[in-house]
Amino acid sequence: MFSGAQLSLHPMRDDFIAIILDAIGALEPWRSRLRIETDDVSTLVVGPPEALFPAMRDLFVRAAASEAHCVLHATVSRGCPGEPDDPICAPGAARPAGGSMAERVAAAAGRVAGAQPVGRSVAAQFSLYPLGAADASADGMGGHMAEIMGCIDFLKASGCFERSKNFCTKLRGDAGPVFATLAEAFTSFGAPDGHVAMDATVSANSPSAA
Amino acid sequence: MFSGAQLSLHPMRDDFIAIILDAIGALEPWRSRLRIETDDVSTLVVGPPEALFPAMRDLFVRAAASEAHCVLHATVSRGCPGEPDDPICAPGAARPAGGSMAERVAAAAGRVAGAQPVGRSVAAQFSLYPLGAADASADGMGGHMAEIMGCIDFLKASGCFERSKNFCTKLRGDAGPVFATLAEAFTSFGAPDGHVAMDATVSANSPSAA
Repeated sequence: MFSGAQLSLHPMRDDFIAIILDAIGALEPWRSRLRIETDDVSTLVVGPPEALFPAMRDLFVRAAASEAHCVLHATVSRGCPGEPDDPICAPGAARPAGGSMAERVAAAAGRVAGAQPVGRSVAAQFSLYPLGAADASADGMGGHMAEIMGCIDFLKASGCFERSKNFCTKLRGDAGPVFATLAEAFTSFGAPDGHVAMDATVSANSPSAA
Repeated sequence: MFSGAQLSLHPMRDDFIAIILDAIGALEPWRSRLRIETDDVSTLVVGPPEALFPAMRDLFVRAAASEAHCVLHATVSRGCPGEPDDPICAPGAARPAGGSMAERVAAAAGRVAGAQPVGRSVAAQFSLYPLGAADASADGMGGHMAEIMGCIDFLKASGCFERSKNFCTKLRGDAGPVFATLAEAFTSFGAPDGHVAMDATVSANSPSAA
């Protein structure tokens, strides 16, 4: 299954170029498992989810170590029928095999509980889009909304939940469990082989953080 | 239909706070038509699409006038079954009434052709997510993918198309037609009353722009 992300890193400081170039160095240990291409708006990273999310974490934590107010934006996708498949995307470990919603929520929360902290506090917000799933019920809440509601149940059990917002859910905590929470939301909800997209924003060192 | 956006503005300069506060002033003429709420990650703007996109344009063009490298990220949504309806979202003008794909592509391109330039060059990339539409065909390309492919046909006729990327499409041009193109993609594709989301990134003054 083809999976990857378009990443944009925004350090809000005069020396943003130096911060970005330094942060890209944090991707080095991941390069054998990812295909990376850059233009003036974003960097494409293609690879399996279990490499994508830790690579994003390492990139962002390195940038945030500058103590500049930094924001990472990620457009993440798996299973898009319009993308070619790529051998680099084959998962190296068994992915969640589906299961009932309650089982998936519990398993995902269990994996986040095992995530190592990295010593950097972040805020994040994201939206999850399970595509190609019909609305199943008359009130319009079936299909993709059932997966979204199940994901929100998981988020509330993740230890990183801050609050529901319009169009997205906000997380706060150490970057280790926060990026693990994003990874679990992306892989455990929506059909295992379905087309799922995520729109995520992660912020550190904001002068207006609560 | 409930519609709105979570907006994050990122000026990559030491004085980013002053640039953001000044840019928010550009939203003043739109305040009667929008509900606006801010936290440390984003600003929620609720209102009809015909106010949302010009308001985003004015916010971003004001920030870019600082000549700092600025990026706007927008998570835009309409028709989400999980959101309450809000009277402020009622469209003030007739929205596209659907029609065949070829008719919608031509009508949307015609409206972009009438968009006024504002004198600021930008790059943009975005993804469109028509939700709750089942895959209709055995090759997985029906339903939501048919709407996405139709939207890409429109983008190629918009005058702002730069190239297709993995997971998104990239635009380049004057901010006037570029934001008009985003508005048309959001309103003319996906079911007229369906749940549609957009993930958009707009960039100006990039030192690495082509």
